[in-house]
Amino acid sequence: MDAASLRKLLQEVRSGAVSPDEAVARMRHMPFEDLGFAKIDHHRRVRSGMPEVIYSQGKIPDQVAKIFKRMKEQGCNVLATRASSAHFRAVKKLVRKAEYRELARAIVLQQDSTNYGKGTVVVISAGTSDIPVAEEALVTAEVMGNNVAHLYDVGVAGIHRLLAGREVMDKARVIIVCAGMEGALPSVVGGLVMAPVIAVPTSVGYGASFQGLAALLGMLNSCASNVTVVNIDNGFGAGYAASLINRL
Amino acid sequence: MDAASLRKLLQEVRSGAVSPDEAVARMRHMPFEDLGFAKIDHHRRVRSGMPEVIYSQGKIPDQVAKIFKRMKEQGCNVLATRASSAHFRAVKKLVRKAEYRELARAIVLQQDSTNYGKGTVVVISAGTSDIPVAEEALVTAEVMGNNVAHLYDVGVAGIHRLLAGREVMDKARVIIVCAGMEGALPSVVGGLVMAPVIAVPTSVGYGASFQGLAALLGMLNSCASNVTVVNIDNGFGAGYAASLINRL
Amino acid sequence: MDAASLRKLLQEVRSGAVSPDEAVARMRHMPFEDLGFAKIDHHRRVRSGMPEVIYSQGKIPDQVAKIFKRMKEQGCNVLATRASSAHFRAVKKLVRKAEYRELARAIVLQQDSTNYGKGTVVVISAGTSDIPVAEEALVTAEVMGNNVAHLYDVGVAGIHRLLAGREVMDKARVIIVCAGMEGALPSVVGGLVMAPVIAVPTSVGYGASFQGLAALLGMLNSCASNVTVVNIDNGFGAGYAASLINRL
Amino acid sequence: MDAASLRKLLQEVRSGAVSPDEAVARMRHMPFEDLGFAKIDHHRRVRSGMPEVIYSQGKIPDQVAKIFKRMKEQGCNVLATRASSAHFRAVKKLVRKAEYRELARAIVLQQDSTNYGKGTVVVISAGTSDIPVAEEALVTAEVMGNNVAHLYDVGVAGIHRLLAGREVMDKARVIIVCAGMEGALPSVVGGLVMAPVIAVPTSVGYGASFQGLAALLGMLNSCASNVTVVNIDNGFGAGYAASLINRL
Amino acid sequence: MDAASLRKLLQEVRSGAVSPDEAVARMRHMPFEDLGFAKIDHHRRVRSGMPEVIYSQGKIPDQVAKIFKRMKEQGCNVLATRASSAHFRAVKKLVRKAEYRELARAIVLQQDSTNYGKGTVVVISAGTSDIPVAEEALVTAEVMGNNVAHLYDVGVAGIHRLLAGREVMDKARVIIVCAGMEGALPSVVGGLVMAPVIAVPTSVGYGASFQGLAALLGMLNSCASNVTVVNIDNGFGAGYAASLINRL
Amino acid sequence: MDAASLRKLLQEVRSGAVSPDEAVARMRHMPFEDLGFAKIDHHRRVRSGMPEVIYSQGKIPDQVAKIFKRMKEQGCNVLATRASSAHFRAVKKLVRKAEYRELARAIVLQQDSTNYGKGTVVVISAGTSDIPVAEEALVTAEVMGNNVAHLYDVGVAGIHRLLAGREVMDKARVIIVCAGMEGALPSVVGGLVMAPVIAVPTSVGYGASFQGLAALLGMLNSCASNVTVVNIDNGFGAGYAASLINRL
Amino acid sequence: MDAASLRKLLQEVRSGAVSPDEAVARMRHMPFEDLGFAKIDHHRRVRSGMPEVIYSQGKIPDQVAKIFKRMKEQGCNVLATRASSAHFRAVKKLVRKAEYRELARAIVLQQDSTNYGKGTVVVISAGTSDIPVAEEALVTAEVMGNNVAHLYDVGVAGIHRLLAGREVMDKARVIIVCAGMEGALPSVVGGLVMAPVIAVPTSVGYGASFQGLAALLGMLNSCASNVTVVNIDNGFGAGYAASLINRL
Amino acid sequence: MDAASLRKLLQEVRSGAVSPDEAVARMRHMPFEDLGFAKIDHHRRVRSGMPEVIYSQGKIPDQVAKIFKRMKEQGCNVLATRASSAHFRAVKKLVRKAEYRELARAIVLQQDSTNYGKGTVVVISAGTSDIPVAEEALVTAEVMGNNVAHLYDVGVAGIHRLLAGREVMDKARVIIVCAGMEGALPSVVGGLVMAPVIAVPTSVGYGASFQGLAALLGMLNSCASNVTVVNIDNGFGAGYAASLINRL
Repeated sequence: MDAASLRKLLQEVRSGAVSPDEAVARMRHMPFEDLGFAKIDHHRRVRSGMPEVIYSQGKIPDQVAKIFKRMKEQGCNVLATRASSAHFRAVKKLVRKAEYRELARAIVLQQDSTNYGKGTVVVISAGTSDIPVAEEALVTAEVMGNNVAHLYDVGVAGIHRLLAGREVMDKARVIIVCAGMEGALPSVVGGLVMAPVIAVPTSVGYGASFQGLAALLGMLNSCASNVTVVNIDNGFGAGYAASLINRL
Repeated sequence: MDAASLRKLLQEVRSGAVSPDEAVARMRHMPFEDLGFAKIDHHRRVRSGMPEVIYSQGKIPDQVAKIFKRMKEQGCNVLATRASSAHFRAVKKLVRKAEYRELARAIVLQQDSTNYGKGTVVVISAGTSDIPVAEEALVTAEVMGNNVAHLYDVGVAGIHRLLAGREVMDKARVIIVCAGMEGALPSVVGGLVMAPVIAVPTSVGYGASFQGLAALLGMLNSCASNVTVVNIDNGFGAGYAASLINRL
Repeated sequence: MDAASLRKLLQEVRSGAVSPDEAVARMRHMPFEDLGFAKIDHHRRVRSGMPEVIYSQGKIPDQVAKIFKRMKEQGCNVLATRASSAHFRAVKKLVRKAEYRELARAIVLQQDSTNYGKGTVVVISAGTSDIPVAEEALVTAEVMGNNVAHLYDVGVAGIHRLLAGREVMDKARVIIVCAGMEGALPSVVGGLVMAPVIAVPTSVGYGASFQGLAALLGMLNSCASNVTVVNIDNGFGAGYAASLINRL
Repeated sequence: MDAASLRKLLQEVRSGAVSPDEAVARMRHMPFEDLGFAKIDHHRRVRSGMPEVIYSQGKIPDQVAKIFKRMKEQGCNVLATRASSAHFRAVKKLVRKAEYRELARAIVLQQDSTNYGKGTVVVISAGTSDIPVAEEALVTAEVMGNNVAHLYDVGVAGIHRLLAGREVMDKARVIIVCAGMEGALPSVVGGLVMAPVIAVPTSVGYGASFQGLAALLGMLNSCASNVTVVNIDNGFGAGYAASLINRL
Repeated sequence: MDAASLRKLLQEVRSGAVSPDEAVARMRHMPFEDLGFAKIDHHRRVRSGMPEVIYSQGKIPDQVAKIFKRMKEQGCNVLATRASSAHFRAVKKLVRKAEYRELARAIVLQQDSTNYGKGTVVVISAGTSDIPVAEEALVTAEVMGNNVAHLYDVGVAGIHRLLAGREVMDKARVIIVCAGMEGALPSVVGGLVMAPVIAVPTSVGYGASFQGLAALLGMLNSCASNVTVVNIDNGFGAGYAASLINRL
Repeated sequence: MDAASLRKLLQEVRSGAVSPDEAVARMRHMPFEDLGFAKIDHHRRVRSGMPEVIYSQGKIPDQVAKIFKRMKEQGCNVLATRASSAHFRAVKKLVRKAEYRELARAIVLQQDSTNYGKGTVVVISAGTSDIPVAEEALVTAEVMGNNVAHLYDVGVAGIHRLLAGREVMDKARVIIVCAGMEGALPSVVGGLVMAPVIAVPTSVGYGASFQGLAALLGMLNSCASNVTVVNIDNGFGAGYAASLINRL
Repeated sequence: MDAASLRKLLQEVRSGAVSPDEAVARMRHMPFEDLGFAKIDHHRRVRSGMPEVIYSQGKIPDQVAKIFKRMKEQGCNVLATRASSAHFRAVKKLVRKAEYRELARAIVLQQDSTNYGKGTVVVISAGTSDIPVAEEALVTAEVMGNNVAHLYDVGVAGIHRLLAGREVMDKARVIIVCAGMEGALPSVVGGLVMAPVIAVPTSVGYGASFQGLAALLGMLNSCASNVTVVNIDNGFGAGYAASLINRL
Repeated sequence: MDAASLRKLLQEVRSGAVSPDEAVARMRHMPFEDLGFAKIDHHRRVRSGMPEVIYSQGKIPDQVAKIFKRMKEQGCNVLATRASSAHFRAVKKLVRKAEYRELARAIVLQQDSTNYGKGTVVVISAGTSDIPVAEEALVTAEVMGNNVAHLYDVGVAGIHRLLAGREVMDKARVIIVCAGMEGALPSVVGGLVMAPVIAVPTSVGYGASFQGLAALLGMLNSCASNVTVVNIDNGFGAGYAASLINRL
């Protein structure tokens, strides 16, 4: 039942064609969620600068391109994550202004450049191999309208490199920390700042890293209380959650 | 080296007793972190209403009581988590105004009632067995100076109960969701709101719940992008992180 | 909003006090699930002989007794699972006619003896140690109004014992199979019958049984296609699902 | 020993050529399962519309084609699961009327269109990536003679999409729910309906989904009591078990 | 159907009261396993000196005692494994000649002292903490009528102690090796002898031994090809299998 | 120190050139394992018909061929396991009489056809996909000089097929059972026979089979006491251990 | 064969009673490890100040006391790890000078105060709960004759506390780092020093720490290359290995 | 702040332009880690013969070549691990004197041939498949300026081969032991020597080796107290740690 048919029913109530009791009975069996609910939600999303997002992995280039184009028409920013250069070439044909962020494996269309965030989202990575995940977080935050900054390759085995970046960290409203292997960096960062820290375990490592499990467990057991965690390699999720926080 | 001894060195530089080059050399070998660094940190913590926190488990009642009393002297709120009634009796003898939040297994001393948060922290639990963890999160948020609200026993198998609480959720600036068993609730909540959601897996369940592992994995794989996760049963951590976010 | 207040709103529409458009707008913001939804659900449950169920583990005897008594007042059967004899003593004081099924660790109050099932639910156990789980399934099916039968101690290492019970199996409309250790019995039973088989892994075993994990994995990998699986030791769930199937 | 030779023995008993005692002794050593047992079973299977099924993965196209052709000769429906287009091309050469259900990765030959089921089997999927598994379940149910319906892409993070499909769910006699990632959908569906729900975890996801383990554990720990579970990605098994239930 | 009723049927065939065709039809529905099958099995077991065995863990003393007494009446040896001294006291009251092997946690009644084995079963343990498991294996082998010998506390970190026992190993027809922690001993023993080696991982260890998992995995990956493995702490199973081999 | 130099030392003792005390001192520091020890071992192996074995996986064809040729020169049988057809082509060039057992993925050179086993080794497989592992076991047993027999595709979901093979099982002196998925077959076989059973879990399956882990755990928890287990897919090890037992 | 009997054999060679060839043959069958081998080893151990060590857990107080006393007689230091106060009371009765190190749960008898180490072994712990493990390492190193120092409660979430201890770290020849939860400290310490670091994961933590597994995996994946790891809670092993290194 | 700007500040203090109090305040906010700290560290590294190391896996040949060339300019030895022949060809073009150690998958440039180690580092491998990991350890130790030796293919199932190498082991100052499958070798070696042993689990094996997990757990549970462990396949880490120990 959409708003139109509800209105029709109510008009019948008004006209006396349907009694209030009958109307209650009929409404009880209506699919209530169609009262415009979904649309409102959609509108709210568009108005607030949330990007439309495509998870490209496992989709063929043409599919991604078509979805991308349709989303572009909503007028908001569009983001395709886990995208290969083949995906990009297909998108580029349909959407001229799309850009490829190679490190982040992301295709981006910036149509709305409003700054929705109140502060800076800082993305930190432990090693150079963690950069693709970090970049995915960074691009997501950018596309969602945030000022961003980053500190890369500041792993805990060279603690002075991290400490040298303290100024950057102190400016952050929210911090995202990406680390593989032992996943220790979020704990150290968490101890140095008062900002909320979102930890992203990466699948970087070998042997007993078990594709990111070691880093994940490490972060969940962080002795710093301001650390929360997302899924292994989930740079997008971290960037998204950080953006929501930065809008508060 | 504390600030006093640094000052003394600088006075010797001024007086010419020590050359600038010598001073550089000596400072290079100083434990630089003692330049008042820790104290500033401590002051900042006190000023900002962060409570002093004691993890009581594995500590004997007397220990908890003594630490509690010493912390009380800092003037800020004091929180002891995972505390038994035996812990509370010991604390009560030394700190009259301490209260025991039985459900949360927490001892609380409220000395600072400033409201540091800008909105409401809402705590949601899936089942009644998750309430101890939810209450730990709630008490933590309260002690850190937040308005709080809660929705309990709104698990996903009775989705209408959750939907009935939509108004409460819509008022939240940050949401904490505690769930054991399949840990599905944060995904559903995450899909209903735009606020950041902190998910707390609980060890509630049996068999293939593997002491909270099932819930933990479920939350990490949430299809809602605004969900981040903390350790199993870590109500405190969720309350702490939510409080930091609510101050932004 | 309950049915009463909805009716009131509709009467205002009828009387012209509220316009249909205004009514649509207000209804959009109503907690629609309170439109008698839960009550209907409840009624449907009561009418159909579904028992009210209490999971006793972790609850103190008094709590169980009070909930039990309140549920009794619904007029339907009442079932408390994972109940100790202490739980039973407390219930007995408040509800005279409650019975204790010791093997099943269940407290039962039979107020409705309608036979809701169309055939027989057969419960099979591999070893004698699996009997508590099997009995929980059996009692659940009974309380939900099914004819039941059982075959116990017919594990796969003595296949002739199982084959001797073929007649019983052939009469089943639904079969529940409980097994610990290697959990092989559901596959063998599944191959002998055309009825749907619900497999319950039990935590019976030691060493590499890992508290039922071996049995669980075995059942999930069953080479018999008519086997579905519930959680380790979840006799109740199996009895419940089997009862629903037996009503079809 | 088949029925013929048993009969011959009995005739020798009748004629006195063999004493009853001798006959007992000889029968004790007979392979009793050859008393037409298997054949009866086969007949029952054919008569009741159970399809012949080939698991194609790991088999070369020619093998699948030959088995498919031989099965066709039984006169019942034939189903080849996990089949590639190469498998299909090989089958098509030998069996003209075979069809390829690409989404389901299934080859189907419909020779018997009897409706063996009493109601509708509804297949629900959480995301678009779960569709191959859902389609395998759907095709299996169809080939086994059921009315089917489906609801796709109704994951828990957009609960209103699921609720909008309530009418479809209410018509189901059995429901199959396929979900990857956190596997929460069966719990929500289970709470909305009284029909038995068969949950199929899919290997969709990454990182801590551990190839479907997270979804599997989630479903096993479902707080809805009408949910049973099959192996990861086992759409066929779910379709098969649902069909058996739908015939009851 | 037992042999008696089968004979009766056959006599009816002979007398013409039942036709051969009718007899075939009736026999097809008989529980064929009751054709004396189980009894033969039982006889064979008794004749061949296989002990009757009771797994005492989880049984109350009285239960064990009653089963023990009933088994004694079969005339063969009786063995109760995982038995506490309380179990023994209860057994002792009913069966005077029962003995308690404390190290092995086994109650033994030796009624048949035939030597069924052709050679010696040698039991080896890595550390002193593995001795209970080793003794369970040893007692099992003894009760099943084997010559036994043992080598204890010859772990791989002191390889010379093991090598000193080479003479004992060389005399073995079958070897059982019990080891916890890294479970390396079976590989070393396996490399020194040509006899079959049955490896028993024990739950001895802490931390990353994960209750015997480390030892179990080690033994399954043994680089010695003559090693097979039983469940963690399953001394009984090893003793049983070794006895069967030693009778060959 | 080899036998020659030891003899030389002893001759010096005899001639008085070296005193007994000096000899003791020098021998204490000798590498005692060079006293011809390894050679004796080698001789024993050759004399007793143990094949020389090459694990081909990860070796390039030329390597395998060269090792194969060198081993051929020992005069005993030669076996290369996990060999591809490319391995075989390379071997064939150097060793004309080598044969390829495709199903078993094994290259065999039969130079010694002595029958070293006293009875028959029976190899049983649950499904057709387990046959490669079963064949590896079978070929190994053959090459080691055993009579062999097999029963394939007799999985527990069609128990009558297994029972039909009872005669074959009853003739076995040792039984090897290969099964993937739930790994239940060894338990059923173990319950039907008194022979020792060696269980081989295979990596056949998908989803929660976890590459053979489910089958492995199932077999380790077998309720049949005559079952021992080897590593996943380790047909060779099972064939080797069975051969040693069959020689006893 | 001990040195005496070897000497006897050699004298027979000298006297001509035994030919060199016969002697070679007999020696080939001797248990060569009894050539005084073990004794030499024992002497070397005693001479070098290695303590005799008793693992007390699972042993009754009397057993520990008797072993302790016997070891005392070797004249070297004696160490009993994992000892309760009950163990200590029993030891104290037999060995007056034994001391109890309560934090380390260790009983110590210092009879040899030689300093065998060339530098200082520094033990670092992340939290106060890790101190028992750290103390076990410390006491072990002391008893083995090392200078020791420690830094406790310097976890990575308060990095300045660790940096303040840099001077202590710089003096270390070997460092032992004990940490539970995320186990990140060894990586940070490893990056600050050039000394070898032995990491000890502790079982401190809850939930996803899985009894030390998270810390263990973290340490194995350390991005600092000078870190090696021992078993969870194995303070003794770390102290032992560090002592060996410090003697180099 | 580097040393230059610190000196400038101090000169201002000396000249009176800045008061000591002001200087303290300004220094408190300086990034203290830039006081030449990193450079000193770097110098120390170069002076002490530590090689510059590149982890090649996942880097394209050109990247590795460029980094290699830049590192060469530091004048110290350069090591690229996990390098393919493609990596080597690219490096060779830029750095003529670079050599490829194929077995170790390492590219080496030896510019500094100082012997920094005091004794010999011995590398032992269990099987031939473990040699790549062993060689990585060996090359690392060589490049870091150590005398090295090795014993390959001395697995525990042929213990005499290991014992034959005792002389080599006795000369070691530090021992590295690489083993896959059951990972038992470090325990045996650890029991034979007094030197510190660094164990490297390798991913060699199949089935229940779980890519090295079995070997890893085995080594962590070693009953030899002188064994510490590094990550699976981490030959480099073992070689690095051994080198540091050998310099002590």
